[in-house]
Amino acid sequence: MFITFEGIEGTGKSTQIARVREYFERQGREVLLTLEPGGSRVGTALRKMLLHVDNKDITPITELFLYLADRAQHVAQVIRPELEAGKVVLCDRFADSTIVYQGYGRGLDTTMLKELNEVAVDGLWPDLTLVLDIDPEVGLKRATLRNLEEGKAKAEGRFEAEHLSFHNRIRQGYLTWAAFNRERIRVIDASGTPDEVFAQIKAAIEMGGPGED
Amino acid sequence: MFITFEGIEGTGKSTQIARVREYFERQGREVLLTLEPGGSRVGTALRKMLLHVDNKDITPITELFLYLADRAQHVAQVIRPELEAGKVVLCDRFADSTIVYQGYGRGLDTTMLKELNEVAVDGLWPDLTLVLDIDPEVGLKRATLRNLEEGKAKAEGRFEAEHLSFHNRIRQGYLTWAAFNRERIRVIDASGTPDEVFAQIKAAIEMGGPGED
Repeated sequence: MFITFEGIEGTGKSTQIARVREYFERQGREVLLTLEPGGSRVGTALRKMLLHVDNKDITPITELFLYLADRAQHVAQVIRPELEAGKVVLCDRFADSTIVYQGYGRGLDTTMLKELNEVAVDGLWPDLTLVLDIDPEVGLKRATLRNLEEGKAKAEGRFEAEHLSFHNRIRQGYLTWAAFNRERIRVIDASGTPDEVFAQIKAAIEMGGPGED
Repeated sequence: MFITFEGIEGTGKSTQIARVREYFERQGREVLLTLEPGGSRVGTALRKMLLHVDNKDITPITELFLYLADRAQHVAQVIRPELEAGKVVLCDRFADSTIVYQGYGRGLDTTMLKELNEVAVDGLWPDLTLVLDIDPEVGLKRATLRNLEEGKAKAEGRFEAEHLSFHNRIRQGYLTWAAFNRERIRVIDASGTPDEVFAQIKAAIEMGGPGED
């Protein structure tokens, strides 16, 4: 089972992914927790390149190809082998981030992005994608606090530094894209407490497992 | 004027590029000499990633996207601005390398590669592409000697370490691709002395300048 988690910064993705991991581990399943960009050995270097504030001169097309390189390597070297070994794979961001950030966010053509994603994922789509949805103003406040606490405001603050209007576009992009892909993507209201959010996620997993769609 | 140089290792590309640079500088033209991968700031890091022997686990699709990222950045940040500033740009490898190495070499679909190249170059194709052609056995012998002299056999020897049959496939790929693109690509016999090879290149430049095709 392959589940991906999407959403703007500050939706509480990391907290919820940890809870989903516990949920599966309690059932005796082995779980791999991974992320994009950066889920493979080569991807770690690409993540640094993509998220570093000094790399603001990276053009939207360059950025796109770097994300696709990271994804192709991640699928081939990590996700596919781990799924074949019987693990549950939980991934923080995946192909939908490319559609939403590069397409709805930066204005690249979403049809082209869909085709490029097909090349990168090589047939491996998630069984379930959870979009954690929140008002960007609330999300950014959470993300900024967390970055300050973790002292990483400088190194990985590129996305958070974007204007609020960009994050609003991303949120709308996720909602639009989810509506086009109802068979795979579920939107989760992430404005409540961690328990409230997890209750929705648990319901989605129990409803949306493979073979039940 | 934008001229790219292609061919397998050991064809004497570097020597000839230096001579073409002199040729234009003697005419009072400003020349930018650049290369792929690695022609931009971000590209330098990508070049290291792509050519390092430790990165043999990079899949063909990942490799493709990394080359495209490098190219997109190179075109946007270096080649286009320098051409607009009136310079002659000479580039060691460009989009045709992707078609030939990833397509004819690694078996990826050349139609897909052509479309991806279009995204990366964003309309900027060379005025002239020179394919330096040589028997791979001769070329590899030259490249191996040069790498030993320069002490870089370990760091950048990934391509040279490929089997001879691969390089034969690449040579044939270049010849096939050149035949499909006669209006832009000229094949140069690189088996002679540097003077003999440059005489052919000079003729191609003087025949094939922009507006004369």
